[in-house]
Amino acid sequence: MSEAAAVRVLGLAGSLRQGSYNRALLRAAQGMTPPGMALEAFDLIDVPLYNGDVEAQGDPPGVKALKEAIAAADAVLFVTPEYNHGVPGVMKNAVDWASRPPRSAPLGAKPVGIIGASPGATGSARGQSQLRQAFEFTNSYCMPQPEILVFRAHEKFDPEGRLTDEPTAKYLRAYLEAFMAWTVRLRSPTPTR
Amino acid sequence: MSEAAAVRVLGLAGSLRQGSYNRALLRAAQGMTPPGMALEAFDLIDVPLYNGDVEAQGDPPGVKALKEAIAAADAVLFVTPEYNHGVPGVMKNAVDWASRPPRSAPLGAKPVGIIGASPGATGSARGQSQLRQAFEFTNSYCMPQPEILVFRAHEKFDPEGRLTDEPTAKYLRAYLEAFMAWTVRLRSPTPTR
Amino acid sequence: MSEAAAVRVLGLAGSLRQGSYNRALLRAAQGMTPPGMALEAFDLIDVPLYNGDVEAQGDPPGVKALKEAIAAADAVLFVTPEYNHGVPGVMKNAVDWASRPPRSAPLGAKPVGIIGASPGATGSARGQSQLRQAFEFTNSYCMPQPEILVFRAHEKFDPEGRLTDEPTAKYLRAYLEAFMAWTVRLRSPTPTR
Amino acid sequence: MSEAAAVRVLGLAGSLRQGSYNRALLRAAQGMTPPGMALEAFDLIDVPLYNGDVEAQGDPPGVKALKEAIAAADAVLFVTPEYNHGVPGVMKNAVDWASRPPRSAPLGAKPVGIIGASPGATGSARGQSQLRQAFEFTNSYCMPQPEILVFRAHEKFDPEGRLTDEPTAKYLRAYLEAFMAWTVRLRSPTPTR
Repeated sequence: MSEAAAVRVLGLAGSLRQGSYNRALLRAAQGMTPPGMALEAFDLIDVPLYNGDVEAQGDPPGVKALKEAIAAADAVLFVTPEYNHGVPGVMKNAVDWASRPPRSAPLGAKPVGIIGASPGATGSARGQSQLRQAFEFTNSYCMPQPEILVFRAHEKFDPEGRLTDEPTAKYLRAYLEAFMAWTVRLRSPTPTR
Repeated sequence: MSEAAAVRVLGLAGSLRQGSYNRALLRAAQGMTPPGMALEAFDLIDVPLYNGDVEAQGDPPGVKALKEAIAAADAVLFVTPEYNHGVPGVMKNAVDWASRPPRSAPLGAKPVGIIGASPGATGSARGQSQLRQAFEFTNSYCMPQPEILVFRAHEKFDPEGRLTDEPTAKYLRAYLEAFMAWTVRLRSPTPTR
Repeated sequence: MSEAAAVRVLGLAGSLRQGSYNRALLRAAQGMTPPGMALEAFDLIDVPLYNGDVEAQGDPPGVKALKEAIAAADAVLFVTPEYNHGVPGVMKNAVDWASRPPRSAPLGAKPVGIIGASPGATGSARGQSQLRQAFEFTNSYCMPQPEILVFRAHEKFDPEGRLTDEPTAKYLRAYLEAFMAWTVRLRSPTPTR
Repeated sequence: MSEAAAVRVLGLAGSLRQGSYNRALLRAAQGMTPPGMALEAFDLIDVPLYNGDVEAQGDPPGVKALKEAIAAADAVLFVTPEYNHGVPGVMKNAVDWASRPPRSAPLGAKPVGIIGASPGATGSARGQSQLRQAFEFTNSYCMPQPEILVFRAHEKFDPEGRLTDEPTAKYLRAYLEAFMAWTVRLRSPTPTR
């Protein structure tokens, strides 16, 4: 990630499917960052399921990379689907790893944001609500507003996964600007770079 | 699982750690099933993270085994920790697979129960609450009461993971009896055996 | 409520505003009950805020009426808005009263259903999710599916509060049929009439 | 509230019962504020149930007083019980009023904190979780950590409602210090006094 950027954000999409609307939403966000913000995506595909016995032997490479990427960022943007009225196991599993160890977890005292998309009417609302509760425990600073719920996602992206819905693009731009201000306000005064 | 049992229950622990209190709680439950109930544990260790692209190629062996085990059972008992004020990614991920495909998922119209343990004060309460929301979507019949919250779990099991707390054992026995009645009342009249 | 009806349902709307979409949704449901179902609305306007000191002196008249109406019904249908990403205080307050006393509350072992409407995109989804958690404690039998989320409610009702959206009407009819079957399956074998 | 205090906090207890553990917890907090913090309790007993028709005629006196007290404070501390696995109607109802009107609600951009007590094992955990979700919508800045869950509250207070449990008192003192720092960090640069 560019050292020159004033605010460096790590983006995590909670779906492993290549054609996922949430991956597409993260890519769209990368294409419209405000001046001074760098937004880098980290693929969760190499982060295994959390296992305390494995952790006791040392973090697997995918987990180590995830934690280092979070630690090096000023903020983390979670882009989450809603599965079964809640947060996907894939997304929560990443948080479960990144919340460890309890006292010095990379998510601690870190500004975070949540956005999401779903083909249904609720636009990932219940997935976002459950995910947000985790950040209470990890002591992350989760931006409350604005809120991005991309409902009927299949109507908002073209077959190549490009965001084509102008109102959604406008909301997303405003979200990123607000998230930049939130990060500047709440990031640690002694960054972990 | 014994064909002879009147009620066959599949047990899933939401932690992969061998010494997990929730694995121990499931084992304790297996040792005190009421007459006519068989409770078989299924280990989630071979169930990978949900990936729609992988699913499109056919369920991986661990997923196939999980879905078949759920379909063959009269009911499913989820034994869940609480991680980061919510359901562990490992537990939710199993539900995410077992909720598919939407119209004929093995969890559909299936009686389910939730119990859990944690070293802290809340005894997995928030993990249970989030998990329960998933069963609304999967159209599973989740027993509302009684409730088993094994708090301060480190005081309830011995170093070999045996449940030594008699009040907890008594609650667990009563839970299993109630769950047997719930299953008999709500299982499909034409079982999928 | 008609003694002759095979299934007697009490309907509670979680908004006190006369022009509320959720009151309108309850009225629409009353106009399309399946044969054998009677659906009577109970207005929460006379149920005060829960106060344990008041309760200790005896339930106020509005509370007494609410509890008797629930006890006399085979099932209860909650029609809830979403306020501030959750269940409205008005709706939860009714449940707080009706959950008492703990061992013999009128909501205990009672089939319940939840539907709802909102002007926004989520159609009361988060209000419904929070309300559902209460029924775990009250040991009510909450029907998991189908689900009615009337989003963009201002487009679904005419200025007189009549449901004019045919797809919504169709979903509502199917919901009521499913709720009738759920009630027949789960109501107490010895009704409290 | 003292104009001289560096940080003025409004405290709201979510129970109307005079002998409530949560009222007692708020009183205990008032007795141990850090230097520079004033903590004033506002009694919700005169805040009626939210009714949009009433609101359209003008806020009732109790609501007007609540909103003015919130607007005049630098931060708000919510002291909440857990009823039926969720936030009490009484507590949520106060938020429902104070979230209006949407664009200029007194809770907007306001630092808030949540603590709570319950006689049971979970110490109000699920009540706190539901309440927290509201502050996402109201755009309030809810402090994630530390967390105060006063479980088995009947063992922590004497018959006169005085906090007698020293570990709880220590946690509460640390909480108030953290909340003071959170408020200083996040309150509006142009206070609404």
